Amino acid sequence: MSLGEFDLIARYFDRPVRRAALGIGDDCALLTPLPGMQLAVSCDMLVEGRHFLPTVDPERLGHKALAVNLSDLAACGAEPLAFTLALALPRADEAFLEGFSRGLLALADASGCELVGGDTTRGPLNICISVFGQVPLPATGSGALLRSGARPGDDLYVSGTLGDARLALEVFRGTVSLDGASLDAVRKAMELPQPRIALGMALRGVASSAIDVSDGLLGDLAHVRQRSGVGAVVEVDKLPLSDVMRVQPLNLQRLCTLSGGDDYELLFTAPAEQAVAVAAAGDAAGVPVTRIGRIIERPDAGRVQLIDAQGRSVQHDALSFDHFRT
Amino acid sequence: MSLGEFDLIARYFDRPVRRAALGIGDDCALLTPLPGMQLAVSCDMLVEGRHFLPTVDPERLGHKALAVNLSDLAACGAEPLAFTLALALPRADEAFLEGFSRGLLALADASGCELVGGDTTRGPLNICISVFGQVPLPATGSGALLRSGARPGDDLYVSGTLGDARLALEVFRGTVSLDGASLDAVRKAMELPQPRIALGMALRGVASSAIDVSDGLLGDLAHVRQRSGVGAVVEVDKLPLSDVMRVQPLNLQRLCTLSGGDDYELLFTAPAEQAVAVAAAGDAAGVPVTRIGRIIERPDAGRVQLIDAQGRSVQHDALSFDHFRT
Repeated sequence: MSLGEFDLIARYFDRPVRRAALGIGDDCALLTPLPGMQLAVSCDMLVEGRHFLPTVDPERLGHKALAVNLSDLAACGAEPLAFTLALALPRADEAFLEGFSRGLLALADASGCELVGGDTTRGPLNICISVFGQVPLPATGSGALLRSGARPGDDLYVSGTLGDARLALEVFRGTVSLDGASLDAVRKAMELPQPRIALGMALRGVASSAIDVSDGLLGDLAHVRQRSGVGAVVEVDKLPLSDVMRVQPLNLQRLCTLSGGDDYELLFTAPAEQAVAVAAAGDAAGVPVTRIGRIIERPDAGRVQLIDAQGRSVQHDALSFDHFRT
Repeated sequence: MSLGEFDLIARYFDRPVRRAALGIGDDCALLTPLPGMQLAVSCDMLVEGRHFLPTVDPERLGHKALAVNLSDLAACGAEPLAFTLALALPRADEAFLEGFSRGLLALADASGCELVGGDTTRGPLNICISVFGQVPLPATGSGALLRSGARPGDDLYVSGTLGDARLALEVFRGTVSLDGASLDAVRKAMELPQPRIALGMALRGVASSAIDVSDGLLGDLAHVRQRSGVGAVVEVDKLPLSDVMRVQPLNLQRLCTLSGGDDYELLFTAPAEQAVAVAAAGDAAGVPVTRIGRIIERPDAGRVQLIDAQGRSVQHDALSFDHFRT
């Protein structure tokens, strides 16, 4: 970026910090977690053409770049504190930067998460954000939510609805048609995901494990199963659907909800005796929470059991995209 | 990276953590700074063609990618704790990954800095590292070294030698010729910079300000002058030179040492009464430290004063690269 790098940072990104001890402008930023807290750290890189389309509205891209990182904090039950932004840009495009920084900093303000540092350089468009949150030490009994805490007998829950982002992607791929209002709705799910921060924090001490759904429900559930050493049963007809999704063909619904990805909802487990506390956490956070299955002993087969409302087994190979297309 | 992303991480990057509370494999890593410490955070992005040549040895690239970040911790006097790595790769190239991870993790081990998380994706080669260190809270009197603490009357120091990385770059650009042994030496300075971590930590409570020299001595000194609201006098004939640099033409020496960049030495200030403590810090860290000038009241003109051994003023425009070439 050589020419104008410092101007660019000052104009679009440098804001006074309130929570961090030191923000942009020195060799390092300085963060002071509260006593008894530990620091949760996550990092995501977004590349044009893989994680977003070149045609995306820069303001929505700014929102999403931070949202996917905040979603990792939410999945740990962490309270957002700060983030760094490294940005490679083909050129210093003011229209892009104006929109991008507006979307980014609006979500940052709304989340209490401050931009404290980063890097800008010239190069193929690449957005790398690292996000920092605080979470009580485990000894407090409401420490970080991990992927490893699911136990047989736990209920399995998901927040919000699933699959809309994938449905939007299929429209852009030309495999599905939607009317304008429906497309706007699912496109918003894809481009403006809402990280479930309040829900994650409310689930500390209640949920036994949590992950955010970024790769698709089955893919992310596999991480929980692996880290916890358990199996799972998912009741596919209980998966929460949006109004747009509800009127789609059944096999498209199942494809999008089970293996869609880009949902940024929380997938979590809790012992049965926590059911009331789970519902209360959802109410407090203003986010619908749906029980979609249960955790079982690790089965011999490596796959999640899928059952429908009649208790019949649903075949995984019915979920492949190729199958859906034919 | 879809295919093999998790294998790639497991094979090349996933190592057990000893200092972090939680490393790779969950939504977030968890760090627990010691009581009374705050967290120093920095982030750098390296792009092929701008920050390194496509021909660089992957092992050296792995070293340098972490070294430039550790250098920011050193400039704050922070003790390294952990880092995250986000890596965009055109393809999963095993020879590259084997060398890159070896160089990266060797420096990580040597620095007590653990890889705790990150992201891999397919895309134009891009390396984004965020590094985390701990530093005592300011109330202890040996808090983070900032750019803003320089005061008129302070001495100005630099560690190591300056300019070799720029000299190597000029050889690759074809503007300078060196014999093989000399080229190897300056190329090592460019490709294997040594972050001055031990020196930075030893300077806490001794130095009044510090920065690492990444953009060139004059450019980085400008940041200190601006943040501290002071001026500076640099005695150009005191700038520390390597054996290779010492035999180069005077104007090439001055170009490389004053505006070279990529040195990753510490540029710092200290009150005159700390001169013995500064020397002791250099001895303890095993790094030469040279007094190269002093801090003055902010002058009317915005530029650093440059003087030679006879006290004569040296003109800044003698330092431009175009001038050097003609």
